[in-house]
Amino acid sequence: MKQYALGVDIGGTAVKLGLFEDSGALMEKWAIPTDTTNCGENILSDVAQSIWEHLENRALPASQILGIGIGVPGPVDAQYTVYRCVNLGWGVFNIKERMNSLLPDIPNVTAGNDANIATLGELWQGGGKGYQSAVLITLGTGIGGGVVLNSEVIAGVKGGAGEIGHMTVNLQETVPCSCGKYGCLEQYASANGIVRMGRIMLEHSMKPSALRGMEMFTAKNICDLARSGDEVAQDILDSWGAYLGRAMSYVSCTIDPDVYILGGGMSRAGTIIIEAAQRHYRKYAFHVSKETKIVSAQLGNDAGIYGGARMVLNTTGYV
Amino acid sequence: MKQYALGVDIGGTAVKLGLFEDSGALMEKWAIPTDTTNCGENILSDVAQSIWEHLENRALPASQILGIGIGVPGPVDAQYTVYRCVNLGWGVFNIKERMNSLLPDIPNVTAGNDANIATLGELWQGGGKGYQSAVLITLGTGIGGGVVLNSEVIAGVKGGAGEIGHMTVNLQETVPCSCGKYGCLEQYASANGIVRMGRIMLEHSMKPSALRGMEMFTAKNICDLARSGDEVAQDILDSWGAYLGRAMSYVSCTIDPDVYILGGGMSRAGTIIIEAAQRHYRKYAFHVSKETKIVSAQLGNDAGIYGGARMVLNTTGYV
Repeated sequence: MKQYALGVDIGGTAVKLGLFEDSGALMEKWAIPTDTTNCGENILSDVAQSIWEHLENRALPASQILGIGIGVPGPVDAQYTVYRCVNLGWGVFNIKERMNSLLPDIPNVTAGNDANIATLGELWQGGGKGYQSAVLITLGTGIGGGVVLNSEVIAGVKGGAGEIGHMTVNLQETVPCSCGKYGCLEQYASANGIVRMGRIMLEHSMKPSALRGMEMFTAKNICDLARSGDEVAQDILDSWGAYLGRAMSYVSCTIDPDVYILGGGMSRAGTIIIEAAQRHYRKYAFHVSKETKIVSAQLGNDAGIYGGARMVLNTTGYV
Repeated sequence: MKQYALGVDIGGTAVKLGLFEDSGALMEKWAIPTDTTNCGENILSDVAQSIWEHLENRALPASQILGIGIGVPGPVDAQYTVYRCVNLGWGVFNIKERMNSLLPDIPNVTAGNDANIATLGELWQGGGKGYQSAVLITLGTGIGGGVVLNSEVIAGVKGGAGEIGHMTVNLQETVPCSCGKYGCLEQYASANGIVRMGRIMLEHSMKPSALRGMEMFTAKNICDLARSGDEVAQDILDSWGAYLGRAMSYVSCTIDPDVYILGGGMSRAGTIIIEAAQRHYRKYAFHVSKETKIVSAQLGNDAGIYGGARMVLNTTGYV
């Protein structure tokens, strides 16, 4: 009898769900809107209802479902207590107990922070496939991250593992980061950060650049222009790589992972950013870790549902 | 019937051995000289011989020995292959297979890098007792380190985990580190590093200091004088804390451990160095990790035998 796992990724506007075979093959994925009214009290009952309907449509009995793995946009401890998710309106409660009361026929429920679970997904079936340990760095508005060692998520004692975006990489910074500190990696290497840094570098440069003609430019503009030979854009991307590559070398001096996976919007720029990060990473990394792979994420928005399903398989000893 | 575990810590001049109850109580410890002649080919047979004699003297049958855990001064992979230990003259071989042929009645042999195993020992019965995850930073001639998460040693893919001493913390350094890079933490925060940094700071300072009267001064002199109010010594110790505290904040942004354990010769200075590191760590750490404990190592040279025994108990499911 075939066995299946459900991956659930709860976001601020939509909940993504996926039904997986125990081999890791995605059978079906779908999404439902996230109802954040009344402190998000309907979110999990909507999820349970949707799961129930999909299993009924497929005539799949609950006995063939190994469990449900849920990614949550906030800290989750080892006993599955959720500690506030501001985007959802959630306070503190036990998500496993809540799901068990909603879907008593699928008792195996596991949950974790969404960035950590996405890392597990990318390691299992995405950019890190075939490796045992990975660090995911998502380059978006900010910098998110997740750490998985020997296929186990490392959340940290207070959920602080994978907060690579808040490594202090510039001791001279005078503008505060959103976290309150000064000189965090996020201020230079996120999609917003590279633009902010780019504006300052442009001001201090005498070189011509197509960036000067743009009232507003984006991380994508910088990457595109760097690729087409714009020297200032290349300088900006090089500074970006110096900050990120150095931060990655700190990660390697701590845990020496198999692979770094770059995700988030900026990772779509592909080879040019991988090379910029790698060039500087190799300069700063301790010799045994210099050849650590740096790859692009492959699962996009599906990383969370893959990771949720993989968490279920981890807990049931299937993998 | 009582069960016991043997911890073995192989150093360049002596091999330390310890017989432990499964509760963690040390029953007996002893040492034998390390025979590095002929590429160290006698070391393990000497260890086996010594274990055999001690068990015979106690009339302890091999059936009551859960296993032997060995710390080695070099990289060891998950299959117990040792990759060269320059201090011992060893090349590449499987240490478990070798021990099994020497002591076939005690088949359960486990091994790892000595710094990692010392961390496990300190977490189990030393400065980190009661915690689940720890990072050991040994402040000696260089800086060693080990990482243990959920009581499992994290060695890293190429054995590079815990190499905190080789985080690049000064981008302006012009003198190379022993590893070939420039600006490694070890160049400022090891016992040798603080002296080197101290000499430079002394040259650039106009303040009076008892350090000026010393032809050669040590890390201990700096700590003692800082404690007695010497301003230059206090400045040097503060710079030391700034480098170490920042590097520790990078570790927390990666794995967010329960506790940092400072070991090695310099850690004997006690509170004054803990406070210097903590003051700066808190400035650089991400908010969730600011209160992470920093403590002194407690087991001294016995950390390795404790860790070896604990590795045996880990693999036999005793803890």
